[in-house]
Amino acid sequence: MTATQPGPAERLERLSSAMREQGMSALVCTRNLNVLLVSGFWPVTGNAIAVVTDEPRVALVVPEDARELAGRGWADRIETYQLGSLDKLETVPAALFGTVEAILRPRAGSLQKIGIEMGPAHLPAGYPSLYVFGNALRARLAQTFSHATLAAADDLLAAQRMRPTPLELDGIRASCGIAAEAYRRGAAELRAGVPESDTVTGFRRAYTERATRQPSVSRADSFFYCMSGANAAGAWAAFQQSHATPLAEGVPVLVHCNSYADGYWTDLTRTYVIGEPGEPLRRIFDSLARARDAALAEIRPGVPAREVDGAARGVLEQAGYGAAFKHALGHGVGFAAIDHNEPPRIHPASHEVLEEGMVFNIEPGVYLDGWGGARDCNMVAVTAAGCELLSPFQQSPDEWCIRP
Amino acid sequence: MTATQPGPAERLERLSSAMREQGMSALVCTRNLNVLLVSGFWPVTGNAIAVVTDEPRVALVVPEDARELAGRGWADRIETYQLGSLDKLETVPAALFGTVEAILRPRAGSLQKIGIEMGPAHLPAGYPSLYVFGNALRARLAQTFSHATLAAADDLLAAQRMRPTPLELDGIRASCGIAAEAYRRGAAELRAGVPESDTVTGFRRAYTERATRQPSVSRADSFFYCMSGANAAGAWAAFQQSHATPLAEGVPVLVHCNSYADGYWTDLTRTYVIGEPGEPLRRIFDSLARARDAALAEIRPGVPAREVDGAARGVLEQAGYGAAFKHALGHGVGFAAIDHNEPPRIHPASHEVLEEGMVFNIEPGVYLDGWGGARDCNMVAVTAAGCELLSPFQQSPDEWCIRP
Repeated sequence: MTATQPGPAERLERLSSAMREQGMSALVCTRNLNVLLVSGFWPVTGNAIAVVTDEPRVALVVPEDARELAGRGWADRIETYQLGSLDKLETVPAALFGTVEAILRPRAGSLQKIGIEMGPAHLPAGYPSLYVFGNALRARLAQTFSHATLAAADDLLAAQRMRPTPLELDGIRASCGIAAEAYRRGAAELRAGVPESDTVTGFRRAYTERATRQPSVSRADSFFYCMSGANAAGAWAAFQQSHATPLAEGVPVLVHCNSYADGYWTDLTRTYVIGEPGEPLRRIFDSLARARDAALAEIRPGVPAREVDGAARGVLEQAGYGAAFKHALGHGVGFAAIDHNEPPRIHPASHEVLEEGMVFNIEPGVYLDGWGGARDCNMVAVTAAGCELLSPFQQSPDEWCIRP
Repeated sequence: MTATQPGPAERLERLSSAMREQGMSALVCTRNLNVLLVSGFWPVTGNAIAVVTDEPRVALVVPEDARELAGRGWADRIETYQLGSLDKLETVPAALFGTVEAILRPRAGSLQKIGIEMGPAHLPAGYPSLYVFGNALRARLAQTFSHATLAAADDLLAAQRMRPTPLELDGIRASCGIAAEAYRRGAAELRAGVPESDTVTGFRRAYTERATRQPSVSRADSFFYCMSGANAAGAWAAFQQSHATPLAEGVPVLVHCNSYADGYWTDLTRTYVIGEPGEPLRRIFDSLARARDAALAEIRPGVPAREVDGAARGVLEQAGYGAAFKHALGHGVGFAAIDHNEPPRIHPASHEVLEEGMVFNIEPGVYLDGWGGARDCNMVAVTAAGCELLSPFQQSPDEWCIRP
């Protein structure tokens, strides 16, 4: 691809304009979600660096193994490095920092301000090992380009991630499509007596089978978590976890998913019941669907994000579940998997205002200690007049009831 | 647990002694593998901080949700923070740095040197989102304790990880045991015609079923990758990947695993053939087994790590596969999943000398472009007189031949 194509061009223009506004003559990214953002290439193990200069022009430094994959993005220049040699022990920084410097050096005269990642971050992790550069890049750039200021580019990058371009939105839509199929097939196979952990295996298998049959996707994988009955009351915690608990009839079966296709992540949840829902589950299902619909109806450019939260929260409060809805309604998603602070925050205290193109999730939930919990989490994109539901599957409470 | 039990006491004594040697009066860890190392608690999403002071004494700051799990480690003090509130938008550092400072402040007078993580790292990732603190902790500590030096503790921590204590080795052994069962069951189900990606599903299912039935394990999951036929020639690359390619008879079927149980990771590989191996696969299987045995026979305290690499490499060179063995023989593993630079490096250029208690992998491999590849990766612990094989399953080439 080249920067003259509509998709990459839009991202590059936005980046360039944001960098100009901040007087940033170069931007160096090491975090997988930001490398994807600026280059269209997702380094699954995190050992690549992207350099953006202000023409705009993007250079990538990637392991030799990743050259072909990197070429599917829109970098104008791809340099590779050798990961490991039998002649010497070498660290990743030693192998690639020289190349990063060589890319920047011809511009050294005009490098007043170099943007780098400094703040904390939730990194999406799709591989058992994720490389982080720690303070090494910062220290090296400060030494080599001692006349330049190193500035935190975290906010600039988060603002860029908040509004995917149409090309990037296609990637997020494709990622949601694979997950949707896994939910359809996984839900159809739900059975009482099967442990939560084995239930997850069914959803994961369906995800993998669907993903590997989509030739446009290079790399995809999923994390599913199933929490049923009383376990589901804890599904609002900092981490999800499946147990050996067998599924029972009539209780909530909450299935949470974070999955990725080429670096575009989903954050989705459906809650099912095997057989008929009794009370209060029937009422909770109904309340969640109405809360979601109230939020969706609110979404359009210019609306304060907190009002979208308020619309859903109002429905749940009226139904008596105000205190049971323990978290914010949503947060930015797509480049990140789960980050409650990824803008836009659909939160009662958010000061953000919706803009066309923003992508986030809408996740009303009801959690009752000792009894259980239910959540419905969808992903949406703000359009000119309203929103596009990126996860248009199993929207009706009737579809959440699995009748064998 | 308390520090008076043999297991934690040994780690705390070693830590304390290493800190004293370096004049480090406090050590603050944020990376999941180091938090596990110093406290026995593995924060799967990375949002916890451990503070070690020199009595020795360990304090943990963890999300409220993780209090119970944190209590299963050996921290003397556990402080919690609230992850997200509906009243205000708050970042993780804002929620917990104050507590970290409160832990350190009573000792401020004697804080000359505070150790923190600064260098690059391969972080093991067992969850779709991994929190990293970036430069935030460093900046904050530098401001609050401006009279103290912040020193890189990366080497100290790596040296500690290199030799698990008996208690930690039990955890690694348990982790290997779950993976071994997945290999046994997964291998028995290998069938020609099944895509690599679905084959992986079988190994993962077996892993999960086995792990969830082990009550002593709180959290476990696996990443399996299957590369067959010509695809297996690329299994030495920077990342592993399964495709939709159906398994065929007579070709190598390489199955790589990184799995964890409560933060103790495995790094394992077996290569199978469905039906009878032809040439050169039979010869490669035989060479790999002999290379592995030659390496195992070399392992004991006092032996230079490069000689262990040399023993295996010599066998493969004699068999004509010298150039096809494209990587080092091994690296430290257990706290880390995959990190080719985790000491001890079993590498031709390594200067390390084996010590009792070191844990690493032994992974001879043969990769022939266009034809395929095979690798046998085991994990070992150095004992007083030799080594303990931590992955004592499917050691014979005969067991690598799956005859339906």
